Amino acid sequence: MNPQLIQECIDACLACLAACEHCASACLDEPDIDMMRGCIRLDRDCADACAFTARLLMRGSALHPRACALCAEACAACAEECEKHAAHHDHCRRCAEACRACEAACRRLVA
Amino acid sequence: MNPQLIQECIDACLACLAACEHCASACLDEPDIDMMRGCIRLDRDCADACAFTARLLMRGSALHPRACALCAEACAACAEECEKHAAHHDHCRRCAEACRACEAACRRLVA
Amino acid sequence: MNPQLIQECIDACLACLAACEHCASACLDEPDIDMMRGCIRLDRDCADACAFTARLLMRGSALHPRACALCAEACAACAEECEKHAAHHDHCRRCAEACRACEAACRRLVA
Amino acid sequence: MNPQLIQECIDACLACLAACEHCASACLDEPDIDMMRGCIRLDRDCADACAFTARLLMRGSALHPRACALCAEACAACAEECEKHAAHHDHCRRCAEACRACEAACRRLVA
Repeated sequence: MNPQLIQECIDACLACLAACEHCASACLDEPDIDMMRGCIRLDRDCADACAFTARLLMRGSALHPRACALCAEACAACAEECEKHAAHHDHCRRCAEACRACEAACRRLVA
Repeated sequence: MNPQLIQECIDACLACLAACEHCASACLDEPDIDMMRGCIRLDRDCADACAFTARLLMRGSALHPRACALCAEACAACAEECEKHAAHHDHCRRCAEACRACEAACRRLVA
Repeated sequence: MNPQLIQECIDACLACLAACEHCASACLDEPDIDMMRGCIRLDRDCADACAFTARLLMRGSALHPRACALCAEACAACAEECEKHAAHHDHCRRCAEACRACEAACRRLVA
Repeated sequence: MNPQLIQECIDACLACLAACEHCASACLDEPDIDMMRGCIRLDRDCADACAFTARLLMRGSALHPRACALCAEACAACAEECEKHAAHHDHCRRCAEACRACEAACRRLVA
């Protein structure tokens, strides 16, 4: 385990968790909520995956490579959806960026 | 600590967690999602409060009376909102019932 | 998705969550805590994996097969450790059983 | 809600979460684990309370003042125990500091 990669991944997971929690709440306030259903749904899963993964990394769990693989998938799915709304909603643009950064940080710990 | 009250509260928290997770997802599929914003929001908080409280109870934490007090508040708020939609959405009716049962079980462990 | 297999897996995850939370706390009370280090460590990871997976299943998340695969791994690792102590500690014996049941229920949702 | 106090509290909760997860794992590796039982136990509760509270704050939940009150209690209890071991274990010293900082940040959001 490379301590710097671990720390970077923890930081990316926590930033992504914050972005997803905020994006879900902001989507629930949008006039065009009808378009944001998938985004809210994926924010929820991605936030849970990031929190779970960050905690395993913090405690040095041997399960972390598997959690990182799952978290990367959750981030990729959430980013793909948020990117569709990035031009209209700043919270989606920032969430997509946090998801892509977390996806990359997680993938570095899978291989 | 009365073991029977503890077990009943764990069961009520887990039933409420399941009802809230299901209700949030079902609300995200409803044609009238515009009306369900508050419900989705409160389902999310209530689910997290129930999961947190159930785990403290399972592990015999000294923090459980405070968690039960908070969980009862979260359940009451979610039930109040779900009850508004109970006539139209079966998932809201069932969620409101699970929230009220969990609120009662939690309150028995606060006093 | 087969609703009966989903429900059985949710139930198995929640039973395993309860067993792991209880086992960790009970291990922390054991006179031979020196022998229980690995058990406490794995109980913690397994409890988190079970809670995470149960919630994804409850909400009908598309991420659930990956979570079930990860949860099965966490359960297998925890069961293997708890089985070493099953003859001496009833909480470990019951935890190992709950882990094996959850591992099996999760594997049915991976394939 | 004061956005700066909210952000400071989120940051304090996440720093405390990381310190508690690390401290619990480090305690599980200590030769004098017999002395660290209470520390591991309280680290676990405090980590869960911090994660729960941080997420409510991130999503702008109305439940956050109650969560902050509970989190402050969890932090105070964990700090008190960790401070007993601060002279011998660096992870306990750092955990106690993170707990006290988080307790203070949470209390600012209760009143």
